[in-house]
Amino acid sequence: MDYLLPGERFDELQRNGYRIIQNPAKFCFGMDAVLLSGFARAKRGERVLDLGTGTGIIPILMAAKTEGEHFTGLEIQEESADMAARSVACNGLQQKIDIVNGDIKEASGIFGAASFDVVTTNPPYMTDTHGLKNPDMPKAIARHEVLCTLDDVVREGAKVLKPGGRFYMVHRPFRLVEIFQTMTKYKLEPKRMKLVYPMADREPNMVLIEGIRGAKSMIKIEKPLIVYEKPGVYTSEIYDIYGY
Amino acid sequence: MDYLLPGERFDELQRNGYRIIQNPAKFCFGMDAVLLSGFARAKRGERVLDLGTGTGIIPILMAAKTEGEHFTGLEIQEESADMAARSVACNGLQQKIDIVNGDIKEASGIFGAASFDVVTTNPPYMTDTHGLKNPDMPKAIARHEVLCTLDDVVREGAKVLKPGGRFYMVHRPFRLVEIFQTMTKYKLEPKRMKLVYPMADREPNMVLIEGIRGAKSMIKIEKPLIVYEKPGVYTSEIYDIYGY
Repeated sequence: MDYLLPGERFDELQRNGYRIIQNPAKFCFGMDAVLLSGFARAKRGERVLDLGTGTGIIPILMAAKTEGEHFTGLEIQEESADMAARSVACNGLQQKIDIVNGDIKEASGIFGAASFDVVTTNPPYMTDTHGLKNPDMPKAIARHEVLCTLDDVVREGAKVLKPGGRFYMVHRPFRLVEIFQTMTKYKLEPKRMKLVYPMADREPNMVLIEGIRGAKSMIKIEKPLIVYEKPGVYTSEIYDIYGY
Repeated sequence: MDYLLPGERFDELQRNGYRIIQNPAKFCFGMDAVLLSGFARAKRGERVLDLGTGTGIIPILMAAKTEGEHFTGLEIQEESADMAARSVACNGLQQKIDIVNGDIKEASGIFGAASFDVVTTNPPYMTDTHGLKNPDMPKAIARHEVLCTLDDVVREGAKVLKPGGRFYMVHRPFRLVEIFQTMTKYKLEPKRMKLVYPMADREPNMVLIEGIRGAKSMIKIEKPLIVYEKPGVYTSEIYDIYGY
């Protein structure tokens, strides 16, 4: 069986021999998705929903890295959802991962309230959608809040989680105040956070956050995650997460 | 003239030849105060209020390090306020620094609304006051929320600041969510933040925050401040801040 459409390719994931189908002209996953899959936890028996799964990178990596029982990836773009489903199939993961073509804004309607133990999400980071030349492009939809806002993602994430359920998100540090505000608004208390610094003497460019539905206020900020030891050389922590 | 009471000593501040009077049996300033004085900015002509000044360490360091025009330190403990006033006098800073014995909770009543360009504060970090054996001890009052809460400090800081005025605080990372919530509640938008990590592979134990009264939401998280290069050896950034 041929899994690839024109323009697509297989990329190796360095985990369990898994591969992912990507189209480099459209959108390829970034380090953020990989770091989130290393930060998020899914325990034996738990059911996980990935909001805005794109080509399915987070469920596929988490199926390899965690003991989570079942993963669902929700993706609004039909073409991306189709690529994700083909990646799931080519890795033989159909029993473990479902890909659903649908809208984050309706996630709790699609799946029902309190239906997951864990939510993961690598949502669009940028609010400035008015200057976009092609707001329909897959890249624009993945990066800018064209089809959903931070509020939508957090609200629906909170609704589909069971009480005590865990919400894992990667985002940009410049929106940290708004992120905390939105999470506490929907009773997803931020409990753990890790800042990702490109180098030890640079500003962070990503933030990894764990929220717990209904928890009390008290956050643990972890040791910094530093990406490069020197230009071109990853730190050992990054090599571990990537599985090299 | 003898500035010292029994049990007190002079400590050198490595800045402009300034000294500070401390009583090691009661309370000595910590690295947090020094780091805050390096993080906070006071420009030419600006008036600065330090909420809970203790022995006056922050106004004295900022008088040495910045071009701020005038500094006021507000301290509820009469004995600490008296030590602070003697430190100001022994450094010949009476024209530049006022020490006022009074309650943070009444700061806007004492000084009037919108009366300062800058507020600095190194408030008590801990909320657990019920287990304290001696809640009247200077150390307990400086470290635990016995006489004022985070809400009091932020509320009064916001009130005494002019629109666009800047609020600088050092605190503990585990309270970051509550800190952001309280600051935004009083329209002190967190705009700049720096985490202090004891070493590069350790969790942060201090957070430095700048809020601006009435600003829009968008925070700049700075490069990490790492205290020790290896055990017993400060990083060059720490040596710079201390002025060695």
